[in-house]
Amino acid sequence: MVVSPDDPIAALATPAASSALAVIRVSGTGSLDLLASTVRGARKPADLRGQTIRRFTIWDGSEKVDDVLLAVYRAPRSYTGEEGAEIFCHGSLPVIQRLLSLLGRSGFRPAGPGEFTQRAFLNGRMDLTRAEAVNEIVRARTDRARALALDRLGGAIEGRVRAARELLVDLKASLEVMIDSPDDAPGDAMDGSRLDEAEDVLEGLTRTFRQGRIFQEGATVAIAGATNAGKSRLFNLMLRQDRAIVSEVHGTTRDWLEGALNLHGIPVRLIDTAGLRATRDPLEGEGMRRTRELLRGADAVVWLVDGTGENGAPEDDILRERDGHAALVRAWNKTDLPRARPAPRGFLPLSAATGEGLPALEAALAEVLLGGRAPDSGEPLVDSERQRDLLTRALDALRRFKEARGRGISPDLLAVDLAAALDALGEITGEVTSAEVLDRVFARFCVGK
Amino acid sequence: MVVSPDDPIAALATPAASSALAVIRVSGTGSLDLLASTVRGARKPADLRGQTIRRFTIWDGSEKVDDVLLAVYRAPRSYTGEEGAEIFCHGSLPVIQRLLSLLGRSGFRPAGPGEFTQRAFLNGRMDLTRAEAVNEIVRARTDRARALALDRLGGAIEGRVRAARELLVDLKASLEVMIDSPDDAPGDAMDGSRLDEAEDVLEGLTRTFRQGRIFQEGATVAIAGATNAGKSRLFNLMLRQDRAIVSEVHGTTRDWLEGALNLHGIPVRLIDTAGLRATRDPLEGEGMRRTRELLRGADAVVWLVDGTGENGAPEDDILRERDGHAALVRAWNKTDLPRARPAPRGFLPLSAATGEGLPALEAALAEVLLGGRAPDSGEPLVDSERQRDLLTRALDALRRFKEARGRGISPDLLAVDLAAALDALGEITGEVTSAEVLDRVFARFCVGK
Repeated sequence: MVVSPDDPIAALATPAASSALAVIRVSGTGSLDLLASTVRGARKPADLRGQTIRRFTIWDGSEKVDDVLLAVYRAPRSYTGEEGAEIFCHGSLPVIQRLLSLLGRSGFRPAGPGEFTQRAFLNGRMDLTRAEAVNEIVRARTDRARALALDRLGGAIEGRVRAARELLVDLKASLEVMIDSPDDAPGDAMDGSRLDEAEDVLEGLTRTFRQGRIFQEGATVAIAGATNAGKSRLFNLMLRQDRAIVSEVHGTTRDWLEGALNLHGIPVRLIDTAGLRATRDPLEGEGMRRTRELLRGADAVVWLVDGTGENGAPEDDILRERDGHAALVRAWNKTDLPRARPAPRGFLPLSAATGEGLPALEAALAEVLLGGRAPDSGEPLVDSERQRDLLTRALDALRRFKEARGRGISPDLLAVDLAAALDALGEITGEVTSAEVLDRVFARFCVGK
Repeated sequence: MVVSPDDPIAALATPAASSALAVIRVSGTGSLDLLASTVRGARKPADLRGQTIRRFTIWDGSEKVDDVLLAVYRAPRSYTGEEGAEIFCHGSLPVIQRLLSLLGRSGFRPAGPGEFTQRAFLNGRMDLTRAEAVNEIVRARTDRARALALDRLGGAIEGRVRAARELLVDLKASLEVMIDSPDDAPGDAMDGSRLDEAEDVLEGLTRTFRQGRIFQEGATVAIAGATNAGKSRLFNLMLRQDRAIVSEVHGTTRDWLEGALNLHGIPVRLIDTAGLRATRDPLEGEGMRRTRELLRGADAVVWLVDGTGENGAPEDDILRERDGHAALVRAWNKTDLPRARPAPRGFLPLSAATGEGLPALEAALAEVLLGGRAPDSGEPLVDSERQRDLLTRALDALRRFKEARGRGISPDLLAVDLAAALDALGEITGEVTSAEVLDRVFARFCVGK
């Protein structure tokens, strides 16, 4: 049993940088009264109606700290479900520091990562899949990732998991009838179609994990090839289309170019292995050591070949160094030149100079990164490793149940597997959970959320 | 005459970085109705009372963009004095981008730098000294700078300038009586004490500019001295006390250490000229070129000498390179060693190893940076160059007036100087101003303020 704390907590909810405005969030029983010691205005914060904003001045003893706006929330109509407030102060670092220190001295504990959302969960404001989606939306780097996380925040995962759970709860009820009074149970008490339906739902969700993960966490793509194959040109072409910032990374151990790219909604770290020589001896030289490192860290490699045949490099030498899991896309560059030969089988024709062939190359890259399938629009994608593991656990238990049932195992024993599946699903939404699990989930959050 | 625009504008008010929360501000006539096309909730934004917060969902056509809280403000009870709103969305970069683009398509113009505060000024919500203080408080880097800016935001400068102006308005009235009916005017019509009082106020404010500026803008302090004089030790000692981050700046042209330090409330950029050799030929070598550059950019130089006499360097060679305006503080290091000789006249004894002598060194540095005077507590400090220039203009006119009056110049001619002084004071608070002046003032602001 997880105990819900409600002591007053405070945290900065906006980035710690100077800007027009900063927001400090407080929540917990008694927090409005605690504010009264430092916050002065026409009325006391505790006397204001919920969801109203008023001007206040913050005082530290006899010293004025800032003029602020204060938004007051009353339980349960707040993000956490508790009474609380948001302080809108000047976005000045000394103001923020002073205010946080003052709140600490006034009896507010600094909030831990995700503690506001954790309270929202504990107070029944949202299930655990929605709570995880809050963090996912904040961390989203592309509009696609935002849309997918917002879908989860709206309960897309929760809804499907609850639907599957309902089906299993029905099965469990039938099973219990069979256990308690085996003679009374009708032959079709355990509807096999319900089992298949639940399995379909869970399988469908589990399959989306790779896609969900890559939209949220992003992927690393390295461009490799011989000198003068046109790697840098392709690199610039891919980045320019998204107006991303190309930054040169200096230093003796990180001597390559990288940029951020939005590839069909996937946040991609694009790496140009410029300046690396292809050599017959892969162990020779510092250059090859770096290439190996870069290729090992990549989720996909674009192998670029000069289609005029003028700048060749042995493909195998470099490509055998890449991570076995990294996907490979081969491109045949310089098709705009009259002397270019036709692209061989397995190579995408490309002109990094004119941009011809780029859309096909990007589509191929997105496809290999998403595991060879285009995302089904409208379907929720699982991003959380925790949810994926629990879905797999539920599916495994369900399949054991199905198999045992086929073998005519006694209802008592069948019940064990069904209970395991139900437990795993309960853990996904947080109906069955432990403080330890919650701490792990919310540790990934930023402070102030 | 400055025309007050009131078209709907929008801007991000928090830093463009991912965090728990972001705030987008909109203001202008009709902005609540404009929001209705994208913001959906239980009620329309325009139907809400001012200063209330409600949950809404943002839609882009049929696509959900984010779940937000919306704070509604009604004219004139808002920051700008206009009707407006604040949108509290998830602090996610794709959400922010999408929302700003959506607001643009809904009829909101992206706000220029400081445009919200400019409207607050134009709508009579604050005078120009307070408006400038808004920017100063956001940019403050130490708690002292925050307190000084907050004092100005509270009207400390405005109050004094208006007081001086009142005195001059009284004088002007007396002067007009003398011009209109010279025979009726009593002999003491033009009270000289009022003139002195106004001059005192303006002189007092003008004098504070150097201090006000340095608390707000900060200062650069370079540590110089022979190799092994203990420069790096002093550098680390000064920074450690403030737990500042020491960052090594790489590169061929910027090969030195620097850190940020809060020196008695002055934000100081501390530079260690470590690795620079002292040499008899100041033109010799790259090292000396860099030393010269660093010393030229410094507001103050700490000249550190090894008190044991073991590591000497010719003071003049290095110090003659410093900016003529840079202040100098000499320190006699290694006083903890038995073989150290006593500090000569003009040198502060110091042990960078034990920290002894550091408080005196820091106090001396703060004093030279503040122009040799401790700041008078409670007095407002002028930070704005604009205000300082206008104060000087007012003072000059006032002194011309005083001098001409002493010489018995005719009241008609005296009136010219008095009018010039009044004009300058009116420009400080913004009673007399032009669109051009305003644009210059608000161009220094961040967007969203």
